[in-house]
Amino acid sequence: MKILVTGGAGFIGSHLCDALIAREDEVWCLDNLWLGRENNIEHLRKDPNFHFIKLDLLDRVALNELFAASDFNAVFHLAANSDIRAGTSDTGLDQRLNFQTTIEVLEAMRTHQVKRLMFASTSAVFGENEAKLNEMDGPLRPISFYGASKLAAEAYISVYAHTLGLQATILRFPNVVGERATHGAIFDFIAKLKNTPEQLEVLGDGSQSKPYVYVKDLVEALLLTFQANLSQFEVFHVAGEGFTTVREMAVIVVANSANPEAALAFTGGDRGWPGDVPRFDYDTSRIRGLGWVPTFGSTEAVTHSVKRIKDNGF
Amino acid sequence: MKILVTGGAGFIGSHLCDALIAREDEVWCLDNLWLGRENNIEHLRKDPNFHFIKLDLLDRVALNELFAASDFNAVFHLAANSDIRAGTSDTGLDQRLNFQTTIEVLEAMRTHQVKRLMFASTSAVFGENEAKLNEMDGPLRPISFYGASKLAAEAYISVYAHTLGLQATILRFPNVVGERATHGAIFDFIAKLKNTPEQLEVLGDGSQSKPYVYVKDLVEALLLTFQANLSQFEVFHVAGEGFTTVREMAVIVVANSANPEAALAFTGGDRGWPGDVPRFDYDTSRIRGLGWVPTFGSTEAVTHSVKRIKDNGF
Repeated sequence: MKILVTGGAGFIGSHLCDALIAREDEVWCLDNLWLGRENNIEHLRKDPNFHFIKLDLLDRVALNELFAASDFNAVFHLAANSDIRAGTSDTGLDQRLNFQTTIEVLEAMRTHQVKRLMFASTSAVFGENEAKLNEMDGPLRPISFYGASKLAAEAYISVYAHTLGLQATILRFPNVVGERATHGAIFDFIAKLKNTPEQLEVLGDGSQSKPYVYVKDLVEALLLTFQANLSQFEVFHVAGEGFTTVREMAVIVVANSANPEAALAFTGGDRGWPGDVPRFDYDTSRIRGLGWVPTFGSTEAVTHSVKRIKDNGF
Repeated sequence: MKILVTGGAGFIGSHLCDALIAREDEVWCLDNLWLGRENNIEHLRKDPNFHFIKLDLLDRVALNELFAASDFNAVFHLAANSDIRAGTSDTGLDQRLNFQTTIEVLEAMRTHQVKRLMFASTSAVFGENEAKLNEMDGPLRPISFYGASKLAAEAYISVYAHTLGLQATILRFPNVVGERATHGAIFDFIAKLKNTPEQLEVLGDGSQSKPYVYVKDLVEALLLTFQANLSQFEVFHVAGEGFTTVREMAVIVVANSANPEAALAFTGGDRGWPGDVPRFDYDTSRIRGLGWVPTFGSTEAVTHSVKRIKDNGF
């Protein structure tokens, strides 16, 4: 199949490109290289089925030219500002990079009659809610611009799917960990320890707890739902089994660092920043019902990721 | 209080301006007069507490000048494309007029430290769902661009309320009827009968059924929740008791028309257009718990509105 992956040089996108190339799809990896890195896809460049396109999704003319020239069978729309915290200082950032990019993708798909969309959404659409939420549950009351922009994108995808013939599958991701991560707590912790190896500053009181998923397990979930026989509009929650606290993550990172004796220094408070959801869990029985079996539970995923990042030069 | 009403010359907005002026608030009625009409607020112009401002909310510079000059205590954000059907032909219309205007209002409020927002949302955020939905229920899967744009607006209001100090109250409106309506089934039926008095074309098979609310009852709901002691972010469903089918509405309009013998001609199908929700009902116990008692049930509201429009020159 001819598949467009937006954000294809990013953390999750590059792993997805790997998997699609392994499946012998023809892959157009689109990225503006704002968060994505050419390093992540360098190894794919020699494959004749792999095409890297440096393009900003907000460049409507260029996007339409690409769609007109390429005859895609499906789009995996992963391009986004994936750094939730960044959205707190620039209230328009997530609107442009998460919501408006989705509108541009939807319109290009409509114009060029591309019928299949896979979309990367987030648990952050729920906001602060400790119930074990399934895909039909409300309320949806995001507390971060990231969550709001993704919910806004979901809303528009719903309309295109219900009235304009698009078949859309939305996966709501939890925190994702693994090789090539460009952001997130593990990434931050490693960067901080490089600056101050004797002490690791941890935002909040460390009690924030969420489910994590290993990036390759997540890619499996994307491919599984992509291949499944689904209706016009479907939503799936994805997460590894269990959850992990920020304190546990910090301990795992320190234990694998150059200085396993580094002290943890908590900044205090129940959350890392305004918009951080302190506790979250959700019901993943729907995607498990399709046969998805992640390799790693939440804390295993964290541990594995830290070790792999260490192997690649911590 | 100093109150800004966006869309203040529109159908609902002008009734709200009436009620606020009656309460002796100082009212800034903002409208770009795209759907709003100067006629609707002509009678208020002589009141020294009433100020009409012709301004487009997407004109960021002018909006900021207004906020800087006026020191508002609260904003009722009602400006919107209220014609759900219009959004099916121009997929960007609702995004600009419903979603982006909300972003502009939120940013102006943040910049100028205005802390209280009342927002007109819609039952259309739910999409197609026949359950009796309350405010905490999901899923939110709109099937119209109108519903998607309002859900996107709700998502952003949630973030501003949860993290940036705004106090926001969202009322989800059903179909609203009454004097000064600028759109909707009654309005369409009257216009059609003027062209072809012998026959009334009705979109769909007439079985579509929804709750209607009388505009002055809705304004009461807005004022009641505005005055109530609420938390930072609250959502209320508003509707008159019961529901009304499109067939019933057509019969009521014909009975009150110049030709009460006019035949009904149904176009067929379970809905009027793609994006029309055929059947809808929701749980309004929350706002009733605050003491809201509408004058009219759903079908009474329709009948009363048709009679009042007839009195004013059908």
